[in-house]
Amino acid sequence: MEYCTFTGIQAIMYEHITNLRVRYAETDQMNIVYYGNYAQYFEVGRAESIRDLGFSYKIMEERGILMPVISLQINYLRPARYDDLITIKTQLRQLPEKYEITFHHEVFNERKKLLTTGQVTLLFMDIASNKRTRMPEYLFEKFAPYFTN
Amino acid sequence: MEYCTFTGIQAIMYEHITNLRVRYAETDQMNIVYYGNYAQYFEVGRAESIRDLGFSYKIMEERGILMPVISLQINYLRPARYDDLITIKTQLRQLPEKYEITFHHEVFNERKKLLTTGQVTLLFMDIASNKRTRMPEYLFEKFAPYFTN
Amino acid sequence: MEYCTFTGIQAIMYEHITNLRVRYAETDQMNIVYYGNYAQYFEVGRAESIRDLGFSYKIMEERGILMPVISLQINYLRPARYDDLITIKTQLRQLPEKYEITFHHEVFNERKKLLTTGQVTLLFMDIASNKRTRMPEYLFEKFAPYFTN
Amino acid sequence: MEYCTFTGIQAIMYEHITNLRVRYAETDQMNIVYYGNYAQYFEVGRAESIRDLGFSYKIMEERGILMPVISLQINYLRPARYDDLITIKTQLRQLPEKYEITFHHEVFNERKKLLTTGQVTLLFMDIASNKRTRMPEYLFEKFAPYFTN
Repeated sequence: MEYCTFTGIQAIMYEHITNLRVRYAETDQMNIVYYGNYAQYFEVGRAESIRDLGFSYKIMEERGILMPVISLQINYLRPARYDDLITIKTQLRQLPEKYEITFHHEVFNERKKLLTTGQVTLLFMDIASNKRTRMPEYLFEKFAPYFTN
Repeated sequence: MEYCTFTGIQAIMYEHITNLRVRYAETDQMNIVYYGNYAQYFEVGRAESIRDLGFSYKIMEERGILMPVISLQINYLRPARYDDLITIKTQLRQLPEKYEITFHHEVFNERKKLLTTGQVTLLFMDIASNKRTRMPEYLFEKFAPYFTN
Repeated sequence: MEYCTFTGIQAIMYEHITNLRVRYAETDQMNIVYYGNYAQYFEVGRAESIRDLGFSYKIMEERGILMPVISLQINYLRPARYDDLITIKTQLRQLPEKYEITFHHEVFNERKKLLTTGQVTLLFMDIASNKRTRMPEYLFEKFAPYFTN
Repeated sequence: MEYCTFTGIQAIMYEHITNLRVRYAETDQMNIVYYGNYAQYFEVGRAESIRDLGFSYKIMEERGILMPVISLQINYLRPARYDDLITIKTQLRQLPEKYEITFHHEVFNERKKLLTTGQVTLLFMDIASNKRTRMPEYLFEKFAPYFTN
């Protein structure tokens, strides 16, 4: 959780930090992390950010809500390398108003260098009806306190 | 399909050959294919060997049979490398008598060098009962002709 | 290779089509292809589009040019599923003027439904100097004929 | 680190425990972890077991020793599932006498159920000569204290 200030106005958002160690399997012969593997790092960031609210994506699925990804955007500034202990910053910058939710991610290495930025938009899908739906109330209540002045 | 002869005795079995191209994603910083990725190559070999019989694993799942893996064994003799067009030989050496089926695999590169050998044993699982079961009759009938003298 | 016509003007570009079969390993428990795996599908599309010109990315690396990815963008419209024989359309819409090259991708299933669109921008990097460089002449010559009127 | 007793004789070995959380990416449509992904879990177990000795595989590579895998064996007893916080037990049961080293692994879920057992044998390779070599002295010294009576 963090409150950020841009140009004198308090921007409110939910922010979470998690760490993970780059696996050998995740590198490629360019001696860097393969570009597709950041999708997994972002997934870990999202999952841990929700867990930190006392909830979990796993429980959401058990309660009948899936969250398929509908868009992914990544910029690669510097490579992550084998055995790097990377930091994944995950931000929810606004509460979802309709059926989608967007997470912003930044990946840093141990020397605090920004490696990657990205964003992932997911849909809330009701398993029973196979239709998109709004963010479930029980998740909304977890995020909402970070978005009030 | 192939009939192999060992020491004068005709060994009967089902054998299938398929090819695939090594992806960059599958390499690691040792400039070779990561050891865990051969499980995917064997999966492709198995799936294509069944498709070549006019059937598919996908249809089996739709008919209610899952095939979880219960053991995997791989020997790595030489590395596969990026962009190699590898050959995966898949053999069923005997018809399953009970609930398990074992496939043997060999991976070759374009210069016919043997890179890897392995074997995978899978269980037949009935989705409805969540219990192990025998090989379904419709699959047995596909394999059986290769095992008669 | 294909010439496309938009609003009466002949748009010139290089286009390549390749196919691949979705692996079980590439699915997740949502019964669809995991969102990060499309990076591999795009990689295959790029590699095969270059091979079709009588060249290969592997040879480029051997000649001292790396192509790290600097941005990735994907929109997921419909899911790809296990065993789908997908079609990957790869387009180079303009010849690179500086150090970067952008490929556009579309993924279709067997019923010709558009599943995914994406674009990948890569940098030309000279291994010896570890600096960005222009597209090597030998690759430029392969692409250029598709961009002349 | 642990000393185990079998049939009255004190068996000495090095043992390390690490934990990791199963990612969505690692599941497949059978709703379990894909069988090939355990190779990554074992890799994490090995890497962390070496790190716990105050060393790292990354440093070994920097000092000119690679450790390619030459065999892998896995038995799958029960599936690991999404979001499981699994425990990976890694054992070195004997000091390598020649060019190879074998690690034994066991994977448990949070309810202490044994999910998977496996073993991985790796070769020590000298990068400069591209030949197999003995375990480097600096690593031997880390392991040796666990194998003296």
